[in-house]
Amino acid sequence: MSGRTSLDTEIQLIKRIQRLSSRFAPSPTRLFLSIGDDAAAFKTVSSFLTLVSTDALVEGVHFDLKYFTPEDIGWKALAVNLSDIAAMGGRPLYFTTSLALPKDKNSRWTERVYQGMLQLARKVKVFLIGGDTCSSPGGIFLDLTIIGEVKPSEVLTRQGARPGDALFVTGELGGAAIGLEVLRDHPKLTKRFRKEIRQHLRPEPRPDIGRFLASRQWVSAMIDISDGLSSDLHHLCEQSQVGAIIDASEIPLANVNQKTSSLLSKVLLDYALNGGEDYELLFTVAPEMKAKIPKSIRGIRIREIGQITGEAGHCWINQQEGRQTLLPAGFDHFAQ
Amino acid sequence: MSGRTSLDTEIQLIKRIQRLSSRFAPSPTRLFLSIGDDAAAFKTVSSFLTLVSTDALVEGVHFDLKYFTPEDIGWKALAVNLSDIAAMGGRPLYFTTSLALPKDKNSRWTERVYQGMLQLARKVKVFLIGGDTCSSPGGIFLDLTIIGEVKPSEVLTRQGARPGDALFVTGELGGAAIGLEVLRDHPKLTKRFRKEIRQHLRPEPRPDIGRFLASRQWVSAMIDISDGLSSDLHHLCEQSQVGAIIDASEIPLANVNQKTSSLLSKVLLDYALNGGEDYELLFTVAPEMKAKIPKSIRGIRIREIGQITGEAGHCWINQQEGRQTLLPAGFDHFAQ
Repeated sequence: MSGRTSLDTEIQLIKRIQRLSSRFAPSPTRLFLSIGDDAAAFKTVSSFLTLVSTDALVEGVHFDLKYFTPEDIGWKALAVNLSDIAAMGGRPLYFTTSLALPKDKNSRWTERVYQGMLQLARKVKVFLIGGDTCSSPGGIFLDLTIIGEVKPSEVLTRQGARPGDALFVTGELGGAAIGLEVLRDHPKLTKRFRKEIRQHLRPEPRPDIGRFLASRQWVSAMIDISDGLSSDLHHLCEQSQVGAIIDASEIPLANVNQKTSSLLSKVLLDYALNGGEDYELLFTVAPEMKAKIPKSIRGIRIREIGQITGEAGHCWINQQEGRQTLLPAGFDHFAQ
Repeated sequence: MSGRTSLDTEIQLIKRIQRLSSRFAPSPTRLFLSIGDDAAAFKTVSSFLTLVSTDALVEGVHFDLKYFTPEDIGWKALAVNLSDIAAMGGRPLYFTTSLALPKDKNSRWTERVYQGMLQLARKVKVFLIGGDTCSSPGGIFLDLTIIGEVKPSEVLTRQGARPGDALFVTGELGGAAIGLEVLRDHPKLTKRFRKEIRQHLRPEPRPDIGRFLASRQWVSAMIDISDGLSSDLHHLCEQSQVGAIIDASEIPLANVNQKTSSLLSKVLLDYALNGGEDYELLFTVAPEMKAKIPKSIRGIRIREIGQITGEAGHCWINQQEGRQTLLPAGFDHFAQ
């Protein structure tokens, strides 16, 4: 490729992505400069905190091209980042991308990644404002940085849990891990696990629920369940310097009937505890606020699963066989 | 590795990075929450624009472990991002990182990447506020997102150049590309090209010069020279819908004597035009402002190299052999 042709290709690609994203552009009163310069520029509201989070998807670690379409990759990269803003109680606003692609992926393929991403972006009203694309001698690497905002009085962190607080979780847990197992090991069962497969490929983060809870100030600490309930409960306890005890019987499992679930390699509780990638919210509520928590928010069930204790760093689970130590056995950022 | 050990490793690594970065933490009045939660949170000044830019370094594309120490990789990843904020006339404030590492890189290695990054961060007073680390089945991938601020009246984009404006450039061009060639092809010459090698491994971006120029409002458009003068001049012309003509004899070349330069594969002008990675600033100035531009800013020479024309998208270069079309033959994000 000559320099000129390649610059044309690059400019054409940027223009196509600009066109795709400008269809749902935010009010220009806040967004001053979007894709196409050295940096994007926007106005903020100074009485709010600005939130920033970064999460990457790496081929062979977070996704496999055997099951993921380019659109799925784009969707999921944005979803995992939206989940981080949700966990802070924030409103997501903008995002930037950094995409490294092997040479066999053409610009049409790249565009499809952005189409999947922008499909979710439109749904939650966040805007692509910049990015970088380059070649990759290895696999695909897609990093996304998301910007959000939250009132200082409403921000939720991992640090506010106190002994005696109740532990709640949104949605059902384990579906994404079941979906992954089916895609990997039981390709003939894909029709029976359509919902779980979708939970793996196209997770639905909970920014609306995060905002709802934050704005009412009922919650003492919050985290998203991206690494698995067992690991993220430990993260929350580490940061709050507390412990926790959860009830196995209260954990909302994937909605799979017994006959179908017998086709899987593990029991449903295992996926719920250690599967990861559910992108639900785990949060704590002081005893006097507990009664306020609704049974569901925006159609998503909210379930009380346990309690915070003073035994710092130690998590327990009550099961039929009695009380056992809960190990953080979810997604491991270094071992995968 | 068991889940527990690995979580410990992860938490220990985050804590070490927190410790490294907190030695030069900014005032807590602005930074509300840094590394260790789902997102970082900071206050902004609402009369300012917030700037965001993302740039990644990919092993085998942007760096080679044969010559780069982990510290060099960290330094350079931050430098290229600082350069984007410099090009907007902005003040850099915070950054987040996303690092994907092959399994043979241990946490000491990772820490060294952050040490290099934080060495530059301390120098320019920017602060690491969050990040993500995961494994990579391919090579190393380090993406960085930088946040800065600028007054709306001072922001500089690629769009303001007008026919008749003078073209200026900071520093000397071509050094980084010469350094790379020496590292790759002439390992015996490394002592003679120490400065150029450093320009490749540890580029010095120009945020101070960008701020100086922006605050005085002398400049009509600005871009950083990361892809090479020829390509970035085209980028600026594309965005401003203008053309340009530059004088070969005015381009500030790497300061290498004739004898030494004869050891290289190309003439110095070639490196200056198409080498890339100089992270200098290219800017345009309206005729009535031209006399104000100093000969040097903070010890860095400022050189007038040409003029903006009305011939949109077309760039020329005056050489001894006469006027020739200048092709964008710098760094190609897709071909490397």
